[in-house]
Amino acid sequence: MSLKLLPVALLLSLGTSAQTTNHASFVNPLIGTHRMGHTYPGATVPFGMVQLSPDTDTIPYEVNGKYVPDVYKYCAGYQYSDRTIVGFSHTHFSGTGHSDLGDVLLMPTLGPLQLNPGTADDPASGFRSAYAHTDERAAPAYYRALLQDHDIDAELTASTRVGMHRYTFRKGGDAHVILDLVHGIYNHAQKNVWTFVRVENDSLITGFRQTAGWAKTRTQYFAIAFSKPFKSFGYNTGGDKETYRGFWGKFNTRQNFRELIARQLRAHFDFDARDGEQLLVKVALSPVSAQGALRNLRAEVPHWSFDRVKNEGQQQWNKVLGAVDVQTIEPADRINFYTALYHAYIGTTVYSDVDGRYRGLDQEVHTATGFTNYTTFSLWDTYRALHPLYTLLQPQRNADMVRSMLAHYRQSAHKMLPVWSHHANENWCMIGYHAVPVLVDAVLKGAPGIDPKAALEACVTTARNRQYEGLGPYMQYGYVPEDKSGSSVSKTLEYAYDDWCIAQLARKLGRTDIYNEFSKRAASYRNVWDASTGFMRPRMSDGSFLKEFDVLNTHQRGYIEGNAWNYSLYVPHAPEAMIGLLGGPELFTAHLDSLFTMELPDKYFEKTEDISRDGIIGNYVHGKEPSHHVPYLYNWTGAPWKTQERVRHILPRMYRPEPGGLGGNDDCGQMSAWYLFSALGFYPVTPGSGEYAIGSPLVQSATLRLGGKTLRIEAAHQSAQNVYVQSVTLNGKRLTRPFIRHADLVQGGTLRFVMGPVVNKEAFK
Amino acid sequence: MSLKLLPVALLLSLGTSAQTTNHASFVNPLIGTHRMGHTYPGATVPFGMVQLSPDTDTIPYEVNGKYVPDVYKYCAGYQYSDRTIVGFSHTHFSGTGHSDLGDVLLMPTLGPLQLNPGTADDPASGFRSAYAHTDERAAPAYYRALLQDHDIDAELTASTRVGMHRYTFRKGGDAHVILDLVHGIYNHAQKNVWTFVRVENDSLITGFRQTAGWAKTRTQYFAIAFSKPFKSFGYNTGGDKETYRGFWGKFNTRQNFRELIARQLRAHFDFDARDGEQLLVKVALSPVSAQGALRNLRAEVPHWSFDRVKNEGQQQWNKVLGAVDVQTIEPADRINFYTALYHAYIGTTVYSDVDGRYRGLDQEVHTATGFTNYTTFSLWDTYRALHPLYTLLQPQRNADMVRSMLAHYRQSAHKMLPVWSHHANENWCMIGYHAVPVLVDAVLKGAPGIDPKAALEACVTTARNRQYEGLGPYMQYGYVPEDKSGSSVSKTLEYAYDDWCIAQLARKLGRTDIYNEFSKRAASYRNVWDASTGFMRPRMSDGSFLKEFDVLNTHQRGYIEGNAWNYSLYVPHAPEAMIGLLGGPELFTAHLDSLFTMELPDKYFEKTEDISRDGIIGNYVHGKEPSHHVPYLYNWTGAPWKTQERVRHILPRMYRPEPGGLGGNDDCGQMSAWYLFSALGFYPVTPGSGEYAIGSPLVQSATLRLGGKTLRIEAAHQSAQNVYVQSVTLNGKRLTRPFIRHADLVQGGTLRFVMGPVVNKEAFK
Repeated sequence: MSLKLLPVALLLSLGTSAQTTNHASFVNPLIGTHRMGHTYPGATVPFGMVQLSPDTDTIPYEVNGKYVPDVYKYCAGYQYSDRTIVGFSHTHFSGTGHSDLGDVLLMPTLGPLQLNPGTADDPASGFRSAYAHTDERAAPAYYRALLQDHDIDAELTASTRVGMHRYTFRKGGDAHVILDLVHGIYNHAQKNVWTFVRVENDSLITGFRQTAGWAKTRTQYFAIAFSKPFKSFGYNTGGDKETYRGFWGKFNTRQNFRELIARQLRAHFDFDARDGEQLLVKVALSPVSAQGALRNLRAEVPHWSFDRVKNEGQQQWNKVLGAVDVQTIEPADRINFYTALYHAYIGTTVYSDVDGRYRGLDQEVHTATGFTNYTTFSLWDTYRALHPLYTLLQPQRNADMVRSMLAHYRQSAHKMLPVWSHHANENWCMIGYHAVPVLVDAVLKGAPGIDPKAALEACVTTARNRQYEGLGPYMQYGYVPEDKSGSSVSKTLEYAYDDWCIAQLARKLGRTDIYNEFSKRAASYRNVWDASTGFMRPRMSDGSFLKEFDVLNTHQRGYIEGNAWNYSLYVPHAPEAMIGLLGGPELFTAHLDSLFTMELPDKYFEKTEDISRDGIIGNYVHGKEPSHHVPYLYNWTGAPWKTQERVRHILPRMYRPEPGGLGGNDDCGQMSAWYLFSALGFYPVTPGSGEYAIGSPLVQSATLRLGGKTLRIEAAHQSAQNVYVQSVTLNGKRLTRPFIRHADLVQGGTLRFVMGPVVNKEAFK
Repeated sequence: MSLKLLPVALLLSLGTSAQTTNHASFVNPLIGTHRMGHTYPGATVPFGMVQLSPDTDTIPYEVNGKYVPDVYKYCAGYQYSDRTIVGFSHTHFSGTGHSDLGDVLLMPTLGPLQLNPGTADDPASGFRSAYAHTDERAAPAYYRALLQDHDIDAELTASTRVGMHRYTFRKGGDAHVILDLVHGIYNHAQKNVWTFVRVENDSLITGFRQTAGWAKTRTQYFAIAFSKPFKSFGYNTGGDKETYRGFWGKFNTRQNFRELIARQLRAHFDFDARDGEQLLVKVALSPVSAQGALRNLRAEVPHWSFDRVKNEGQQQWNKVLGAVDVQTIEPADRINFYTALYHAYIGTTVYSDVDGRYRGLDQEVHTATGFTNYTTFSLWDTYRALHPLYTLLQPQRNADMVRSMLAHYRQSAHKMLPVWSHHANENWCMIGYHAVPVLVDAVLKGAPGIDPKAALEACVTTARNRQYEGLGPYMQYGYVPEDKSGSSVSKTLEYAYDDWCIAQLARKLGRTDIYNEFSKRAASYRNVWDASTGFMRPRMSDGSFLKEFDVLNTHQRGYIEGNAWNYSLYVPHAPEAMIGLLGGPELFTAHLDSLFTMELPDKYFEKTEDISRDGIIGNYVHGKEPSHHVPYLYNWTGAPWKTQERVRHILPRMYRPEPGGLGGNDDCGQMSAWYLFSALGFYPVTPGSGEYAIGSPLVQSATLRLGGKTLRIEAAHQSAQNVYVQSVTLNGKRLTRPFIRHADLVQGGTLRFVMGPVVNKEAFK
């Protein structure tokens, strides 16, 4: 049937089908909220500055100076198995392994005032409340829970910079809204630095909260508006020794005093509630100032319609989710897919006000001119697949993220691109300088509005910082010696890949000097190769390999978040050379097979941080990022069907449509991005190369709107058994190798897979 | 001799004589630095934001939770009797009784690095150094001391927003500049809130220091430039438990790491010094941001000439000091006069950047458009004579201060004009709402650029704040009941006067309603008058007077910083009525005589806070402001010669040209302003009335440049014995009462006193 023959009405219907499908309804934000996923179930819009979500506990990371391991559980503030809600805070990371945030917690209560949160075992001992999942609803831009202790229906929604609460008091009485500025995620005794709150009038408060946590010097400004005037207010300092009160001591500053200032502060705002009365609260955030928050509030939500904010938020979601319209055989796969896309789109977040102003890494206020400033760059995770996903589906946003990273570089005292950047801070988490592959991949794929020379200069300056994490010795020895800097193999391999990226950009810009310098550095992976064991192995500055070397137990012995088995496979820019080191394609294929099938003894697993057994297949650790490209390596050994098989094995096991369905941290969307690419049938093994490796699609079909172009992906004969690719054609032209170029995909057209139940070794011939 | 007949050359010479006299050379900044004066000896320009001065000790106000009374000594950071200097910090109050500041302390050292200040007894135990007054020099915009322990000549100078240091290393060696951000004046364990420092390059650092002291939430931004690159740097946290280090822990952040972040931070910058080498350091401040400080640095001191900054600073001083050109019989009196003028002109300080931006009371950044923003308003002290002095001699600056106070009002969560405002904070020190007389006096005297209606609205709103310090009960009962709010008599009397001021402005603007309301309130002083004792007396809310009432011992019993004897005379807006209450002019004169001549037993004196015996004459407490108008009250009893006698008695006793020469705190210049008015022969007993009371001039003559007009004051037959005024003429017209109008004085001309050794009871007939 030719489109030319279709009636106009039908054409319109086809053309708008994506809009009319409620893609947001396929998202279940509760996926990943049990155990390891570390996602949050609350209300947010795509890339929203506000992540308004229930927190179910507040375990500090240390008690009496001792580390509390259980703190990892609460990276997103919420654990599905918990039975109480402490309140609703406005900032959350999605899927991280360490954490921070949990700012500006509000909790509505009924009855006698309680200014401590109480305990999970005895919620009545504080303002927290029991809740049940039967009364809970989580959807894009919407969350609801019944706070049983207070008989209050609490609903949440959000715009980009404003969170909105709707509290329905099922029974009237003495109502309070607790503003807990002690509360935070990943606490320690010294975390709260300062709190400043102004009661502007009887329904508006402004202020800031300053913390020293994962972000060493972070300030969150806010403005809070109530739909009804409070009748009184007050605060306490939660047992914290109050700072010098001076002549403030002559006032009763605890009650109805319009400035609330302390290091640890919990405030209450008091109301008389009638049966069934609804109280609305709008909370705007700003990285700049309380007035900035107020401007955000007035610009984004100048009204008091909760439903309007919710509807507009869900429209935003439908727009970005609907740009990728997939059909799957199993409804569960569609839920997985859109939830993964949802998680991918909350991994990085807007960090500038409606007027473009933001706080920079130098703690100064800057204006983002011509772009939106973003934060939450967990780059060790996200350079792999999340930023390539953005480059494909959200190229303008990704370009803005790159511009945000370049601004970070300009503001850096260390003259470095971000490593792990959040909220005007560099938290230095993990290793490498993986803003480099993000920049290079984006620039080489034609990201708009980026000066390639400035990008190259930032990459080169970053990569030459001799103070950073063994980089001086790396430049001196050709590898990071373990005796000079720990996790030396991980660093050497990742530096080498990042350096290769720099060389690619340098070549593109005709900078042969830089190309040569960094191409040489890119070969550094060879310097940690130990032919005697067949693994990458920590090496000392005297040239010898580290003597103690158990390839399974490499905890803090040359590797980070991965063992020698997984990490030794990390040479994404030179897989053929790596395969050569391991004895050629056949031996390498067998080596890979061993990885996926070996039995990992418990004693080794126990050393693996923060993933569940579910996150491991054999000794392949999908819950940790260094493995993510590994299933695709068979494409380089002449055995692409093994990639297809592994990918289809991994997909349903590592991603299940249930709260405990993620086998590891979602890591700001990197785990989800792996799912999304893999489900569509290809994966960016080597960002910066311009190529994707072909896998085995999970979807039946997909329509991707890529700017003005449309890419249609079809998987003929798709089924749970038909995991083997028989052939692939792009616009009718057969692929003769299991790779496809980004530049070809973004021209649009149809990428057609033919699937079958048996291996076709000739699929790419 | 008519001016018309003078040759042109002589005219020019006369016209410029004030410029060619080095008035700055008459200033001795060391006056008041011993014991009670609480002045500082360091370098500053008129109203400078930077007060760069040596600190000789750092006593915290509490140790182990217990208050340390000796802390009062160090309000200005310096005590003349001390033998060691800890370092040079950039912010100091002049003459206050409580304190704060002492920000950004620098100390140059030679030899092994020491990162604690050491003790006064053993300066070698730390970086502090012994010094001697013989090697010390203090002048306007200049300070020098020889740091004996380090053999370093340290010189200081300043522009408005930039302090400049010149360190001459007499001997070369391992040199360090210590940047002590733990150091501060009026410390307590929790005072330091946060410190953020960036090493921008090898000779420039920027940052901020945040404290919670007398100002509850204060942030001082800075930029520091060295004339020579440092070779290395580092810091420690002075024993303070470090906050969560997170992944910063993988770096050695203590050495050469370009971000220094902690709660308690002392940094060092290391140099090799040659024999005789000079190291220059520029330190700029900003209330807005580190970049603001950098802009101030580049705008005010773009060069490296210490002498140029010093010369320009002293030119500024000569300009403002030279606008009042006085001749005195004793050289000591000239030193007293210009030192008092100097202290008057460092009492309030500029608090906006070169671009007009400043931090407001709401902690937001504002721009002062059309005015310079000022801070340091110790209004309970300074409404009496300092602001009237500014109105006379610095009307534009005083108008800017009024505009700064109105901005404070607009930014106030409490909708109140400042009480004691410093550095974007209200510290609530002392009582009353004495911005009101400042505003009213300025507006009624025609201060430029102030909207009278806005001023009235701010005054009225402030005065109606029922939450403030017994103001609700005051409005209800007609007085502040002692059982509702302490210091009730002081408050009642001062509120009544402030209310009278509001009524005067309301009348001027035709607001009869407000005039009537506040005129009624202005009579409230009558409600605490106790005819049975002849004193103002604390009264309870049931109408009874407080039973226990010892008129000499009123510490915390109805009065603050004054006893019933002194405070009962405080009805400046209705002296005749007050005199009537006390039995009429004759009885009142005798009552005043008693005040000045009675013997105050030690047991009462001991309760008087922070003044010396020198500050008292009989029971007249000149060291405390409530007495300041008292010597002038004889003008209302028909015995002006007694005012003349008392004033000339007080002047040489309370103001002596030596470090211990001030009998009480200079209080941001109020004590000095009393001196200046009194030395010129008149005093503003009732700001808001437009009148001055005549006293007895100390000067022989004075030429005051008042905008375009010149006022010449002459005291014919002046001598130490000739204290009695025989007659006073203004432009040849004889005064028939011992008062003179501001409006007449500012027309210029000649105010001529004829002095004599005996009382002339007909002087004003």
